[in-house]
Amino acid sequence: MKHESVGDDTPLSSLGERGVIEKARRQAGRPRAPLLLGIGDDAALVHVPAGKLLTLTCDMLVEGVHFRRDWSTARQIGGKAAAVNLSDIAAMGGEPAVALVSLAAPGEIPARFIDDFFAGLTAELSDHGCQLAGGDTVASPGPVVVDVTIAGFQEKAVRRRGARPGDVLMLTGPVGGAAAGLALLEAGARFPGADTTERALIEAQLSPHPRVREGRALVRFAHAMTDLSDGLGTALGLLTEPGGLGARLDREQIPVAAGLAQVAGRFGLDPVHLMVDGGEEYELLAAVAPGRVPSLMRSFSRLGHSLYPVGQVTASPGLFWREGEREAAIERASFEHFRLGGEL
Amino acid sequence: MKHESVGDDTPLSSLGERGVIEKARRQAGRPRAPLLLGIGDDAALVHVPAGKLLTLTCDMLVEGVHFRRDWSTARQIGGKAAAVNLSDIAAMGGEPAVALVSLAAPGEIPARFIDDFFAGLTAELSDHGCQLAGGDTVASPGPVVVDVTIAGFQEKAVRRRGARPGDVLMLTGPVGGAAAGLALLEAGARFPGADTTERALIEAQLSPHPRVREGRALVRFAHAMTDLSDGLGTALGLLTEPGGLGARLDREQIPVAAGLAQVAGRFGLDPVHLMVDGGEEYELLAAVAPGRVPSLMRSFSRLGHSLYPVGQVTASPGLFWREGEREAAIERASFEHFRLGGEL
Repeated sequence: MKHESVGDDTPLSSLGERGVIEKARRQAGRPRAPLLLGIGDDAALVHVPAGKLLTLTCDMLVEGVHFRRDWSTARQIGGKAAAVNLSDIAAMGGEPAVALVSLAAPGEIPARFIDDFFAGLTAELSDHGCQLAGGDTVASPGPVVVDVTIAGFQEKAVRRRGARPGDVLMLTGPVGGAAAGLALLEAGARFPGADTTERALIEAQLSPHPRVREGRALVRFAHAMTDLSDGLGTALGLLTEPGGLGARLDREQIPVAAGLAQVAGRFGLDPVHLMVDGGEEYELLAAVAPGRVPSLMRSFSRLGHSLYPVGQVTASPGLFWREGEREAAIERASFEHFRLGGEL
Repeated sequence: MKHESVGDDTPLSSLGERGVIEKARRQAGRPRAPLLLGIGDDAALVHVPAGKLLTLTCDMLVEGVHFRRDWSTARQIGGKAAAVNLSDIAAMGGEPAVALVSLAAPGEIPARFIDDFFAGLTAELSDHGCQLAGGDTVASPGPVVVDVTIAGFQEKAVRRRGARPGDVLMLTGPVGGAAAGLALLEAGARFPGADTTERALIEAQLSPHPRVREGRALVRFAHAMTDLSDGLGTALGLLTEPGGLGARLDREQIPVAAGLAQVAGRFGLDPVHLMVDGGEEYELLAAVAPGRVPSLMRSFSRLGHSLYPVGQVTASPGLFWREGEREAAIERASFEHFRLGGEL
């Protein structure tokens, strides 16, 4: 192979499929247990720990819809492609093990994009004990498209359904950051951003942190769980509506990303809209029996993880806030990819 | 949900992500063992049979590169997206179990495309005992992009490496059909085609049959195996070159797709090129110890599968034909996606 010698500016069209595979293989490193056979055969082979279930998820990111190459570095794009999938495993309480990635990209994309993309992808996977096990690459006339699949293992799983009236709703971190970061990016701000607060908001949008460790800790406690990938409002709906239930949140208990109010004020946005409807957030929302909350909080405190009780599951449908003495319905704007018509 | 009532012409942009998911869920049917939890949660959950390895593969198909909507029906596109992945599992000797699919499509695509796509996908999966377990959908400004992941289970696996000098090379079916079908399509022929022979060649290109049952039968016999997705020449190289080996084929023993010679003559193409370099073929090529060939042939005959001994693995490198008394090097044109520059 002479692909070692290609320069950073070599376009994909000259690098060839084998060159891309070689780059992926180098970043993936040597297979280690439970991966028996990684990149370079017709399929990957994985040893499954006895007594464990297999968890499978995939998420596709499309340039111009989920990311922009003038907003994110290739490393950030690779990292986010891993993170959004790791978050789905986290939301089941699973343990990520191996990943596959398919990449469609125009032939004129330079080799360094591929290097940086795989570096970001494998670093994020590796942070959560997950290895790159295989994938596919293809030259495309269209935008860059990345599809990641993650396979995890777990003994016990938490589904979206299963919340019971009276359960306490627990949230692993602040909301609204990714939406505020998007507002900043749309207004022309760029990573790393003008100040620390802006930077953190933009990073929330471009480089989310999946709550894999938190999910694995919550699996022993939660009746139901999901992530906030389509926003807090959608997550509340997913945990309650299929069972004919509802939720009442305590507005003052909800952790909010630092700087959200300022961004909302600056751009004339409703801070509640940013908190409730902002997607691309990867905190977990779980429903936990009230009697188990103290031991759960102790467990999280020991592990150094954050966890916030933000409200209760109600027997009657509807999503409400409590703010001091007042109570009001939570108004949700729906977030659906096809309704966005390809807009970021 | 009011998605039941949408018409066939409803564009994806109005159908919404939930509408697409509902269509996928309806085609997937109710989860059955080993699938415990299918479409509709953060991830799918699968029961892994004790003592089995997990096999994982993904393949991405891009409109304009791997398929054209004026050449294939949506049903054929869905079927082929499943078939090419099933073939990778077959090439390991695995048993396909569950699949995920990610679909990026422009918002103006009509709902019937989605219906037909999922019908073709799930029918092909189902033919091989595989269920649709989840996926992702996204509106894209670009071409239709489909990425399918299949998870399979198996006790024993056959890799690409492992062939030994003297092994007999066994092929599960005729070569050149998909390449001849492509030549017909490029010349303006359309499915179902003018006559039976043309139709079969076009079908070989648009609706390949993965050799899953054959792969599972070969796993007990083969030292090494791969599929012909990048053509016979590439498959021969994959089985021999990493071990410093070569191959000598008996030209007259190689089964050739009916009508290939006529198509080659009509379009001034080299029939050998169609046989050796034609990708998009999904037969299996396996290396089997000579002493095991008779029992393998009996086993295939009992199962009603075809199998052709086409040559031997040689201790010295190089790929050669034997045709009567003459011997000649097999000339290969390399097939690499990025080198094609997005051409079909």
